[in-house]
Amino acid sequence: MNSFKVTINPFNKTVEIAENSSLYDAIHKSGIPIHADCGGEGKCGKCRVIVDKGDYRSEKNRLVTPEDSARNIVLACRTFPGSDITITIPDKTLLPYDYIEPLRSCPIAIKAETIDPLVKRFSLRLEEPSLDDNISDLERVKRGLKKAGVSGAIGCSLATMRKLAPLLRENGWMCDIYLLSADNSIVDAGRPSGGSRKLGIAIDIGTTTVATEFVDLESGRSIASHSLYNRQISCGADIIHRIVFSQKDDGLEKLRSLILATINETVKKITGESGRPREDIICAVLSGNTTMEHLLLAIDPKYIREEPYIPAATRFPILTAQAVGLDIPPHSPVMLTPSVGSYVGGDITSGVTASGMNNSDQLTLFMDIGTNGEIVIGNSEWMIACACSAGPAFEGGGIGDGMTATSGAIESVKIFDMNRPPVLTVIGGGQPRGICGSAMIDLMSELYYCGLINQKGKFNPDISKMIRKIKNTLGYIVAPKERTEHGKDIVITEIDIANLIRAKGAIWAGVSTLLKKLEIPFGDLQRVLIAGGLGNSLDIERSVSIGLLPDVERDKFCYLGNASLSGARLALLSEKARRELDEIASKMTYVDLSTTPGYMDEFVAALFIPHTDASLFPSMSS
Amino acid sequence: MNSFKVTINPFNKTVEIAENSSLYDAIHKSGIPIHADCGGEGKCGKCRVIVDKGDYRSEKNRLVTPEDSARNIVLACRTFPGSDITITIPDKTLLPYDYIEPLRSCPIAIKAETIDPLVKRFSLRLEEPSLDDNISDLERVKRGLKKAGVSGAIGCSLATMRKLAPLLRENGWMCDIYLLSADNSIVDAGRPSGGSRKLGIAIDIGTTTVATEFVDLESGRSIASHSLYNRQISCGADIIHRIVFSQKDDGLEKLRSLILATINETVKKITGESGRPREDIICAVLSGNTTMEHLLLAIDPKYIREEPYIPAATRFPILTAQAVGLDIPPHSPVMLTPSVGSYVGGDITSGVTASGMNNSDQLTLFMDIGTNGEIVIGNSEWMIACACSAGPAFEGGGIGDGMTATSGAIESVKIFDMNRPPVLTVIGGGQPRGICGSAMIDLMSELYYCGLINQKGKFNPDISKMIRKIKNTLGYIVAPKERTEHGKDIVITEIDIANLIRAKGAIWAGVSTLLKKLEIPFGDLQRVLIAGGLGNSLDIERSVSIGLLPDVERDKFCYLGNASLSGARLALLSEKARRELDEIASKMTYVDLSTTPGYMDEFVAALFIPHTDASLFPSMSS
Repeated sequence: MNSFKVTINPFNKTVEIAENSSLYDAIHKSGIPIHADCGGEGKCGKCRVIVDKGDYRSEKNRLVTPEDSARNIVLACRTFPGSDITITIPDKTLLPYDYIEPLRSCPIAIKAETIDPLVKRFSLRLEEPSLDDNISDLERVKRGLKKAGVSGAIGCSLATMRKLAPLLRENGWMCDIYLLSADNSIVDAGRPSGGSRKLGIAIDIGTTTVATEFVDLESGRSIASHSLYNRQISCGADIIHRIVFSQKDDGLEKLRSLILATINETVKKITGESGRPREDIICAVLSGNTTMEHLLLAIDPKYIREEPYIPAATRFPILTAQAVGLDIPPHSPVMLTPSVGSYVGGDITSGVTASGMNNSDQLTLFMDIGTNGEIVIGNSEWMIACACSAGPAFEGGGIGDGMTATSGAIESVKIFDMNRPPVLTVIGGGQPRGICGSAMIDLMSELYYCGLINQKGKFNPDISKMIRKIKNTLGYIVAPKERTEHGKDIVITEIDIANLIRAKGAIWAGVSTLLKKLEIPFGDLQRVLIAGGLGNSLDIERSVSIGLLPDVERDKFCYLGNASLSGARLALLSEKARRELDEIASKMTYVDLSTTPGYMDEFVAALFIPHTDASLFPSMSS
Repeated sequence: MNSFKVTINPFNKTVEIAENSSLYDAIHKSGIPIHADCGGEGKCGKCRVIVDKGDYRSEKNRLVTPEDSARNIVLACRTFPGSDITITIPDKTLLPYDYIEPLRSCPIAIKAETIDPLVKRFSLRLEEPSLDDNISDLERVKRGLKKAGVSGAIGCSLATMRKLAPLLRENGWMCDIYLLSADNSIVDAGRPSGGSRKLGIAIDIGTTTVATEFVDLESGRSIASHSLYNRQISCGADIIHRIVFSQKDDGLEKLRSLILATINETVKKITGESGRPREDIICAVLSGNTTMEHLLLAIDPKYIREEPYIPAATRFPILTAQAVGLDIPPHSPVMLTPSVGSYVGGDITSGVTASGMNNSDQLTLFMDIGTNGEIVIGNSEWMIACACSAGPAFEGGGIGDGMTATSGAIESVKIFDMNRPPVLTVIGGGQPRGICGSAMIDLMSELYYCGLINQKGKFNPDISKMIRKIKNTLGYIVAPKERTEHGKDIVITEIDIANLIRAKGAIWAGVSTLLKKLEIPFGDLQRVLIAGGLGNSLDIERSVSIGLLPDVERDKFCYLGNASLSGARLALLSEKARRELDEIASKMTYVDLSTTPGYMDEFVAALFIPHTDASLFPSMSS
């Protein structure tokens, strides 16, 4: 079989691919992360590249205009080289490499005296052995641990046994021992460190964004954090596309290596910036939805999307960093938060743990608005959960100029003058590159209450100069090209708004269906907790005004930010939190909305701003 | 740096070595196992090779005669090539590749109804999932196990989680689950096998010999067994030389790879001969002395031989075959029997478990006579143990024509006519190649009671034509060259006999010192159990007659054969045995003979046949 060389600019990277492979395959092989919401199915139009030189054959696609073709702009996934070829990936196709502002963390503090970390360090000073006291080095260490208060049988890793003898003798029978709380096993031993080696990492593996936090396991303080786009985005924007991709040849391994690359990149970045060596890390807690946790462990997620929607596993043993593939010391324990089912994952049990609703008598609504939307209702006695097919709109997926809440994203919008550009705030303070979830909510609300769009989200083109024809649809200029980073207008189109209405409608319908099933009126909710990557500027009032959140007293709302990450951090620090994670996973009842009567009616009724039934939003009609 | 090619015959194998490397290094690199009792220190003279072609430089060595030099016979460890070179390894230098007759196994039967194997197979038939019963595949399996009587928390290996989903669906929700008894964790899952996949392997890792037995974990029957020389012999005949070798560059890794090569070779051989595929093996129990267990796991044994003689570890977690390096399915659990201390290892706890002395009221003396000699005295209430520096004489080490109890070994000797060759039995029935432990005992006894040697083991050359001058010493022709496999006389020399007397003296002194310490007269012993690789023909009467065993009533003796292997087999099959192993390791008191007053006197007094104090052997003076 022939093969062709594909040179990819602006990286000047060349890869070789077999005949009949696409440019999308070539880009995958190169490791350069790009947008490809549909996972290479020719449906999203995100993987546009420019062919600079060489022969190729492109399949006809409605997303490629004659003007595109004239400029050699093609969809990478539909284009097949016929010779060695050189292409350029435009900025918009590239998945940004840059780091995302950490979300405001969930306001959960943990008292230093209650800290009981996943891996605990014991600084031991042992008696020197003699002919009369000649137990083995390991038994001597165990004796030291027992004196330090550890009870029960103590295990030990092979790697530790291998290093123990020289370690003890070189350090005058003093050493630091790292004990995994879950089973009292020694996972590592080191020189008396004087306290430096004690970091854990908490990681939220979102479908779109991976957020990582370094935590001091003794003080409980976060010392650094960072987020990055999940590089799996190259294989599809949402979990369904990822699962489809996982069924390709090597698809599962590819997805695994992409999420590992993302995580390891954040770890590298933080170690570099914080000046703390990787060797200071002694454990990790990872939290993600069920599909993300399967993909991370290379467990086939195939049956998650086939009725009756069964995951392979919902609870995972504590593994080693080596087994998982994390670039931290190989024997560090890695815990994954437990899932409830296929569509209520470890990110939700983690978020609920962080929210504390499992310890509260108050009837609480917990909403996680991310690439998926998950709803939990309950209190310390019971919990019921569902997942809404909201899609990734609020994280920027499926929105022309959408992006996650990261540097360069518009995070809030206020229209003062209908004929002039709106007033914006931009994350990081520079010129904007796109629109994140919180600003999308602002925009829908502002456009609707200014009369620029109607209840169905259709533009009224005659009343504002900022509404323009954009290709085959209408759009509103959020930021004119003179003021943007890339020199192009940032717009929100009717198609974008339709996507957002569907997303908010799906979430609303989830809440509404669950409450009806429980026969609880909205007014009985005592707390409404909102989690997810919408951005730090989430405006509750506007979220209610578009029908995303229920119209209840505003003081019942609390925005938790990335609660999944907060829960992972808690699990690093607290035995109680680790126990609660398991209890929550056991006690939560999962409701499958697709088979719940009335859900579709609720959804259709919610495809209005704020809703077809205005009586649900009394405060909006005043 | 220059390098030279060394071609090794009769294998026609060529390896490249750096300048200043020895022929011994070259042979190591080639993987060809040879005898080298001293581990390449130029002291044993076993690594003799013939240089056929090429330049070399040999260090002067008293073990190489001018005649040797004239014939280009050199010690590999003292010879350094000066050009590309071709050598031949003579048969006597080669460590035999052939398989050793399995020793008579310890007469311990286990009732089928009490079998509770290390890894237990559960054949499950699960309910098909539905929207109403949508727990994960793993939780479904756990539910099935609970219905089958498994209680408590159930863990699962990552590898199993990866294979579960397709396995269950391809087999109509039926599967075999393999559960590790120690912690109720699922170690593997497979298709409903109808009972074929259920083998465990028991392995005794002797310093000289590695014995392996395949055991059906459901019936308890042994289905095949084999033994091989431990290829580590190329690095020294006893544990002290092995530990010295382990301190060389890559020495530890080399020793580990040699023991793994030996074990994996026996596994390969048995799977080949029994027709049972390797995949039928689901777990292993390994039993060896403390140094062997350290070397197998690549744990540095350095401090075992330095006062105060501290091993790195005496208890090991259950590992995976992959972590250990065994060529059986990678996730199979591998258990190592626990040690007591540096010189009382897992082979002794295993042997004691097999002997049942820990469950007996009778005052029992347990003697393991292998490359080391270990003594245990006690009963169900208490146990005390020591190790004697007996050396490997009874396994053939340090004895010119010595060999282990394998095919071609003379295993019993009877002198009918002082002037004619003795009557022999040979293991396997063919022509002899050497002398094993049981025949050495016979020879010492026969030679002494026929008057051919005196009490000190010195020959009386005038009374038998079979006594000849052999190099600088005297020797007795055990088998004349016309009747041997290799066409050379098999002899036992005065030097050999001196070695044997030292070995039996060391063992005797151990027993005697312990009993004196306990203030127990020999006559109070109610049972004497003998374990070790002496050969199936061990003659108790003759062993007493040379002063190796105490002169007590003969019906108190029992020869257990390879009790370490029997204990490993029991641990495969019985939860009770696994518990007992731990209890024995905890309760046994170790006595260091080197610091025990009186030991040296006992040793010196025992350097006579049978002993300087004839009153200790009343039945011999009659």
